[in-house]
Amino acid sequence: MTISQRRDRLRHRLVAADLDAMLVTDLVNVRYLSGFTGSNAALLVRADQDTPVLATDGRYVTQAAAQAPDAELVIERAVGPSLAGRAAAGGVRRLGFESHVVTVDGFSVLERAGTGLEFVRAAGMVERLREVKDVGEIAILRLACEAADAALHDLVARGGLRPGRTEKEVGRELESLMLDHGADGVSFETIVATGSNSAIPHHRPTDAVLTAGDFVKIDFGALVAGYHSDMTRTFVLGSAADWQRDLYELVASAQAAGRAAVSPGADLPGVDAAARQVIAAAGYAGNFGHGLGHGVGLQIHEAPGISASAVGTLLAGAAVTVEPGVYLPGRGGVRIEDTLVVGSEDAPEPELLTRFPKELAVIT
Amino acid sequence: MTISQRRDRLRHRLVAADLDAMLVTDLVNVRYLSGFTGSNAALLVRADQDTPVLATDGRYVTQAAAQAPDAELVIERAVGPSLAGRAAAGGVRRLGFESHVVTVDGFSVLERAGTGLEFVRAAGMVERLREVKDVGEIAILRLACEAADAALHDLVARGGLRPGRTEKEVGRELESLMLDHGADGVSFETIVATGSNSAIPHHRPTDAVLTAGDFVKIDFGALVAGYHSDMTRTFVLGSAADWQRDLYELVASAQAAGRAAVSPGADLPGVDAAARQVIAAAGYAGNFGHGLGHGVGLQIHEAPGISASAVGTLLAGAAVTVEPGVYLPGRGGVRIEDTLVVGSEDAPEPELLTRFPKELAVIT
Repeated sequence: MTISQRRDRLRHRLVAADLDAMLVTDLVNVRYLSGFTGSNAALLVRADQDTPVLATDGRYVTQAAAQAPDAELVIERAVGPSLAGRAAAGGVRRLGFESHVVTVDGFSVLERAGTGLEFVRAAGMVERLREVKDVGEIAILRLACEAADAALHDLVARGGLRPGRTEKEVGRELESLMLDHGADGVSFETIVATGSNSAIPHHRPTDAVLTAGDFVKIDFGALVAGYHSDMTRTFVLGSAADWQRDLYELVASAQAAGRAAVSPGADLPGVDAAARQVIAAAGYAGNFGHGLGHGVGLQIHEAPGISASAVGTLLAGAAVTVEPGVYLPGRGGVRIEDTLVVGSEDAPEPELLTRFPKELAVIT
Repeated sequence: MTISQRRDRLRHRLVAADLDAMLVTDLVNVRYLSGFTGSNAALLVRADQDTPVLATDGRYVTQAAAQAPDAELVIERAVGPSLAGRAAAGGVRRLGFESHVVTVDGFSVLERAGTGLEFVRAAGMVERLREVKDVGEIAILRLACEAADAALHDLVARGGLRPGRTEKEVGRELESLMLDHGADGVSFETIVATGSNSAIPHHRPTDAVLTAGDFVKIDFGALVAGYHSDMTRTFVLGSAADWQRDLYELVASAQAAGRAAVSPGADLPGVDAAARQVIAAAGYAGNFGHGLGHGVGLQIHEAPGISASAVGTLLAGAAVTVEPGVYLPGRGGVRIEDTLVVGSEDAPEPELLTRFPKELAVIT
């Protein structure tokens, strides 16, 4: 799908919502609909016009023309108000705006600039489009996941998880290896959590030392061309105690059940429940305190959320994580996470993008 | 100054603005006023009460108690609405809110939760407090700038800027060295721009190769305990051509003039002009297309902005950058940037935090 086709999809939604145009001010959404990656931008998409209007400031004249060649350019620092004024002058009556992004003060400025417009809240309209990835997006997500896979493989192969190293050292080396494997950056601050720290779901790396007998939980991702990978693996250093094997197998079973539930049209809370009930049946319902997964793409967390309170279904072509965990405070925890692409009606099996093995790896 | 004293300063401003309380929802501002660094939080500061109320969710019970021991804790996911409801129930009538941060949709939820409250826009009220750094903040900024200084020193000493390396390699090594010198992370994505790329003010590192005769412009910073350093240095590889020496000396003179203008009470556009007129007098007014500097602290860009259109004066104890540049498209550019702390009435000389030398260094 080309970027112009993305805008066509938005324009169909505008017609359905009886909107004459949409003022896109979220920078990720602007990027998705125009290709432009600058730090100050807004986009006006009219229901009745193929060509969008991209506003940015003087720093980005060259970049905007190169990245968004099919957009009409407006160079002005106050990007949102300038497009609101243009919409008003151009006969737009009902203008959708991103009410979940525009601030109260920002909206006042928009209203002054777009006198006569009816501003209509259109929160999440572009995010819902982004939920389904096109072929080009999936290709990039694959590259991002491959870079992460290769980095973790190298880390383990070169003995990067040996006792005596600190969480911080491991995190830095893994991040460096992702760059070596072609990542533009990291998706988020790498989590390396050893021993009892592994029981903290979102632990930041410290100077804690990896020690024989520890769980080491690593949650990390590579950023490639704006797209984020997301994967968690948990290892055991030295020999695994029985409780560690049991805990690991439990989470692995839950994760497999969650993956098996990932299919087009699946009810979101149902996917969460498929994994959660495995953990609950083992008596650990209270030790899995977060949702099962989330969409991933131009943002590390995006629609859909997969949790008990989610509303809706999995869409064919959505990229999502499946990441159950069981955390035993003071002892340790296990999380296993993959990024997958939801299959289609014809081929409902999801595509697994993070392919690093999930068998319990005892690092010796 | 303790965190409690920061809140006292805010409470004085609340009284002056006839507000009964302030609902702080910007996470950086919450951190500044409470010490809490979690990713979901809001703070209610009442004009008539010493103890603030900190709302966060269940992930952060332990962390909130540890980081903000003097706050009353409310554990609820919808942090802003829960505090608005609490304010309404607790007799607050006029509630200040951060209208530059709260979204249109977010505000609707606040209004529903805080029925009966008069919501008053209080944009920037906390940011203005943050402009003046206290002794503890300056000590941390010093550490951050020292880590950056030491990293750049190491990079040059070990031959990190030799011809044949790529911008990306240099950037990665410098970032790694900052971590070696105690940084928790980087302030922002390091800019390494060689040759004609140095004419691009905010260039992202590429695979471009450092070549003899190039300007190499490096803009980078270390993050320490939440505080950002910011420094730019420009080098010449091999022997400097006359035009390079001239350009460098021009920017260095402008930067010295800008630093000399940094004193308490100085008019912000006047500080900008002090540097800008040096560049304009040499005929390069059109090649210095950004403001002279900005405040730096818990954010890499914060109040005050130092530019021709700025309003206000430099406050004693503010931490600011001074960073003039001259950019010659297709040829190359020079920027020299320091982070300084504005002096006091008694000792008006600013403190230079970024101490790496600024003489033209020809790297051989």
